[in-house]
Amino acid sequence: MKSAPSEIQLQKETLRIETFSDGVFCIAVTLLSIEIGVETKDNITNEGLTKSLLAQWPIYLAYITSFVNVLLAWIGHHSLFKLLRKTNNFVIVANGLLLMLIALVPFPTKTLGTFLLSGALKTAVVFYTAYFVLISLAFRLLWYAAARSKGLLIHDVTDSKILQMTRNENIGLICNGFIFCVALVNPWIALSLSFAMWIYWFVFT
Amino acid sequence: MKSAPSEIQLQKETLRIETFSDGVFCIAVTLLSIEIGVETKDNITNEGLTKSLLAQWPIYLAYITSFVNVLLAWIGHHSLFKLLRKTNNFVIVANGLLLMLIALVPFPTKTLGTFLLSGALKTAVVFYTAYFVLISLAFRLLWYAAARSKGLLIHDVTDSKILQMTRNENIGLICNGFIFCVALVNPWIALSLSFAMWIYWFVFT
Amino acid sequence: MKSAPSEIQLQKETLRIETFSDGVFCIAVTLLSIEIGVETKDNITNEGLTKSLLAQWPIYLAYITSFVNVLLAWIGHHSLFKLLRKTNNFVIVANGLLLMLIALVPFPTKTLGTFLLSGALKTAVVFYTAYFVLISLAFRLLWYAAARSKGLLIHDVTDSKILQMTRNENIGLICNGFIFCVALVNPWIALSLSFAMWIYWFVFT
Amino acid sequence: MKSAPSEIQLQKETLRIETFSDGVFCIAVTLLSIEIGVETKDNITNEGLTKSLLAQWPIYLAYITSFVNVLLAWIGHHSLFKLLRKTNNFVIVANGLLLMLIALVPFPTKTLGTFLLSGALKTAVVFYTAYFVLISLAFRLLWYAAARSKGLLIHDVTDSKILQMTRNENIGLICNGFIFCVALVNPWIALSLSFAMWIYWFVFT
Repeated sequence: MKSAPSEIQLQKETLRIETFSDGVFCIAVTLLSIEIGVETKDNITNEGLTKSLLAQWPIYLAYITSFVNVLLAWIGHHSLFKLLRKTNNFVIVANGLLLMLIALVPFPTKTLGTFLLSGALKTAVVFYTAYFVLISLAFRLLWYAAARSKGLLIHDVTDSKILQMTRNENIGLICNGFIFCVALVNPWIALSLSFAMWIYWFVFT
Repeated sequence: MKSAPSEIQLQKETLRIETFSDGVFCIAVTLLSIEIGVETKDNITNEGLTKSLLAQWPIYLAYITSFVNVLLAWIGHHSLFKLLRKTNNFVIVANGLLLMLIALVPFPTKTLGTFLLSGALKTAVVFYTAYFVLISLAFRLLWYAAARSKGLLIHDVTDSKILQMTRNENIGLICNGFIFCVALVNPWIALSLSFAMWIYWFVFT
Repeated sequence: MKSAPSEIQLQKETLRIETFSDGVFCIAVTLLSIEIGVETKDNITNEGLTKSLLAQWPIYLAYITSFVNVLLAWIGHHSLFKLLRKTNNFVIVANGLLLMLIALVPFPTKTLGTFLLSGALKTAVVFYTAYFVLISLAFRLLWYAAARSKGLLIHDVTDSKILQMTRNENIGLICNGFIFCVALVNPWIALSLSFAMWIYWFVFT
Repeated sequence: MKSAPSEIQLQKETLRIETFSDGVFCIAVTLLSIEIGVETKDNITNEGLTKSLLAQWPIYLAYITSFVNVLLAWIGHHSLFKLLRKTNNFVIVANGLLLMLIALVPFPTKTLGTFLLSGALKTAVVFYTAYFVLISLAFRLLWYAAARSKGLLIHDVTDSKILQMTRNENIGLICNGFIFCVALVNPWIALSLSFAMWIYWFVFT
């Protein structure tokens, strides 16, 4: 009679970590907007304000890119946690590392938006794409920690499901790594590839 | 025996997306206040500070307007999700688009508050009202995605309820579109219409 | 058979509004800290930084005051919602008004902290205390909306409990009103009374 | 028949306070990132932006340190609340005090990151470590409030579990106190000790 509530307890603890993680994803995604605004008050004519609003398109582009990326990461995070029935310290550390990166996404986003039209374009895009390589690595580490021993996964998980998740994590890592490499050569192609990847994701997943 | 928990699982997944969306609404609405403050420290007299506080009324007006609009959007979002029993990728994309717009509401709000008393009044109001037309469109798209096939809706939904929701979404879109058109002619009438719409909403819904 | 799930549904809807409200309280309370920091970078000596940190005590005082006030408001909000089994539009509007005020608490807090040691001390304290009179009024309105007809309250609520809640809301309103009046005469006594009220609250509630 | 739902009610109230606290931890941890960004727009070359990004390493270090510390505090908070079946005013006040400190963590973090490479290094590190001594004290107070009478703890808690929690809280307090003392002598050793403590925590807990 003791093992049954213990199983429920394990599930509850896992759910609690996922809820906390969801909170971080949710706040991170909403904080992306926090510094967007027309800064100068010199636009006191209608034309001036219109121009200022339009001139900020790199900021909007960076916002949209990061919003979609964090939403995709959230979906991926949930797919992973659906397979977990309990956690250990390794999983908690890997998850903490991932959240630490997710919570800081506003920083590369701001950098991308601010410097997209400047002479520092390449550095900004390389930094941004490198950051998402880091996030992919943290995801890969989290999945490694989770799948290392079958004890952490739910009982009715099949080997093919584990394999599929491993493949998905690897594909995500390779894609982001590839985009990062492209960014080193041509930042604009790298950004376009990002967009193309989303479409692939939504159509084929 | 497998289909029953599967149905619960579907509901849970849908609830999870709604909870995440609720989080975005909740954070967006609270972040509206973040940059409100008396900026200059030159108001070192009681009269000076009083004047500064009162002079900021367009900021307060923009805050109230957006707070109510986001709350209404949240209520509308919940009405829609109450009819959903499962989601697909199209719904997730449409919902993501809506959240992306909701999370950025502080931006048009700030613009409206800052430029309401400047020469850029019309641009600010047009931008603000256009933004809420976009939100209405995202809502309409989300409902289109949800209602396209009856498979996504809960089993006991009636045709009249679907029709009613469609009508509500359309009315919202038309109202916001009309306010936007009015803003192109006279920004103050457009803002007044916004207020009038709220009263209608609360009294007749 | 239809009325029983309907009752559960009502409870769920009420809980959902409370959860959203909880989120606003929670975010508002955490956002209070957002602009606290040592601004100037000229403090490059240890002594300089120490002085800067200590000189900001009005900011810390305002932070603590608002944190406690919002926590107390949260506790009061929960006590009220525990008596509710369903809501209507009037309750939703009154609750929305309350949330709108709670979400903006960082604004009077910032004002209080910034001007406490300036010549605008009285205006800052009057504004701050007036703001909490507004919050008390919104609470009173919410309770009025909830208690107007017994249909919204849970079935086993006793008349003495309703009376007690009414008395609590009235006492809160009178206390905040009194502190506001004192602030018009002497701001420091008003702030001290605020602190005294907390102690009363925790010891006697 | 009345005592059983009352027990559930107690658990629900306790859970509610924990959920609110979780929210504060979650938002505080995500807000740590809010002011991180490359400020100057003069870095219009790729090299300039790269340099600016790298030069900010103290900001990143402070971010990581605080993120880990708040996550550990969250884990500790949960361990404590798992032993609670009901709360009283003393627990609520102690918990409020802890949350007030957690919500303000971005402030010492910012201070640490900004002044780590300045002449005010020692003050910044002393302030930061002193702040976490305060957090340890609030934790110790919370546990004191919870354990004072066995009535607040869950029924099946063993004396050894209570003793273990007391020991853990004391160890945390002593460690943070020791790091604070070291900071008074050598800030860099103090920061290194912080990192060493994490490793100990994750390996031995």
